Amino acid sequence: MLVTRFELKLPAWLQTIAAGDLQVPASLRHRMQFVLDLTRQNVEQSTGGPFGAAVFDEQSGAVVSVGVNLVVSSGLSIAHAEVVALSLAQQAIGRFDLSTRPYQLVTSAEPCWMCLGAIHWAGIRSVVCGARDSDVRAIGFDEGHKPVDWAAEYTARGVNVIQDIERDAAAEVLRSYLQQGGAIYNAGNRDSHLPQ
Amino acid sequence: MLVTRFELKLPAWLQTIAAGDLQVPASLRHRMQFVLDLTRQNVEQSTGGPFGAAVFDEQSGAVVSVGVNLVVSSGLSIAHAEVVALSLAQQAIGRFDLSTRPYQLVTSAEPCWMCLGAIHWAGIRSVVCGARDSDVRAIGFDEGHKPVDWAAEYTARGVNVIQDIERDAAAEVLRSYLQQGGAIYNAGNRDSHLPQ
Repeated sequence: MLVTRFELKLPAWLQTIAAGDLQVPASLRHRMQFVLDLTRQNVEQSTGGPFGAAVFDEQSGAVVSVGVNLVVSSGLSIAHAEVVALSLAQQAIGRFDLSTRPYQLVTSAEPCWMCLGAIHWAGIRSVVCGARDSDVRAIGFDEGHKPVDWAAEYTARGVNVIQDIERDAAAEVLRSYLQQGGAIYNAGNRDSHLPQ
Repeated sequence: MLVTRFELKLPAWLQTIAAGDLQVPASLRHRMQFVLDLTRQNVEQSTGGPFGAAVFDEQSGAVVSVGVNLVVSSGLSIAHAEVVALSLAQQAIGRFDLSTRPYQLVTSAEPCWMCLGAIHWAGIRSVVCGARDSDVRAIGFDEGHKPVDWAAEYTARGVNVIQDIERDAAAEVLRSYLQQGGAIYNAGNRDSHLPQ
């Protein structure tokens, strides 16, 4: 008798936020500050790794979905913030293809190997990042084998990439996670549980 | 009021199989034939794309989880067969790290960009593939930006890769999907909905 289903759900504190009236000012900086606030709360509430994301309607600024990293709490290694936010956006609009409107993914840190592919399949056309890949690796996460210039690869595929929005603040959240002893959940690589 | 949860569950026909007494002979060829049988049924039942996967206990041969592609039916672009099988294995054993025992992922086709990253984070140490990346691209799927030699990259990371197990039969399932008009669900790229 095998397991035949799995579920991912936002933690209680984020469900409360998601049920509220979300007003986020239009600038990229404000969108990122909103995402970094979720990221900080995920660390403070100990509900997951130091990563947050949200999907916006790029033009109206409406929040379509939110996500935070839930790997350890869910026991699912796919539960990166980007995957959570993209999947919840797809559920919200009722289709897997996010290319049909100008949606924008705002993520607290550059996507990892898996999330680069997940964004590719979701078809979202705008990606806004806070921390750099090097900031994430600096606290010990093994982000995997990414294209040398992933932003150029995305651009060639028609995906607009905007980097370094509130990078310092985003990197500070990563460091605070490390300082409070948060799990560096690289599977199968005991050494890299320690910062490199 | 945002959506706060999503679920992935196996289609009814596969739930029935998953509830049964699964006996799979020990050879890699038999494991792949089991997976290709699931893949064929996914096509015939029109429950998803032409991809299947299973996680085995490499030594005992016990089936830990099964998965098929559910992108179109679930409306979630992450619902690749490998992601489904890995996530259900993680649910079954109650942890995200599959590196702690010798588990083996058997997949009907080489992993795409996203699934290469998903396997990386799941920590599974053995990957067995049927069809080649070129077989998948031949029917029109945009598998993304993968390392030039992903198997060598995996090997360097301590993941054993075995390719071309029942490749012809696996490629035949891909072609049959195309012939019956199955959806080529590349998001945001209308041209590539047609075979290249």
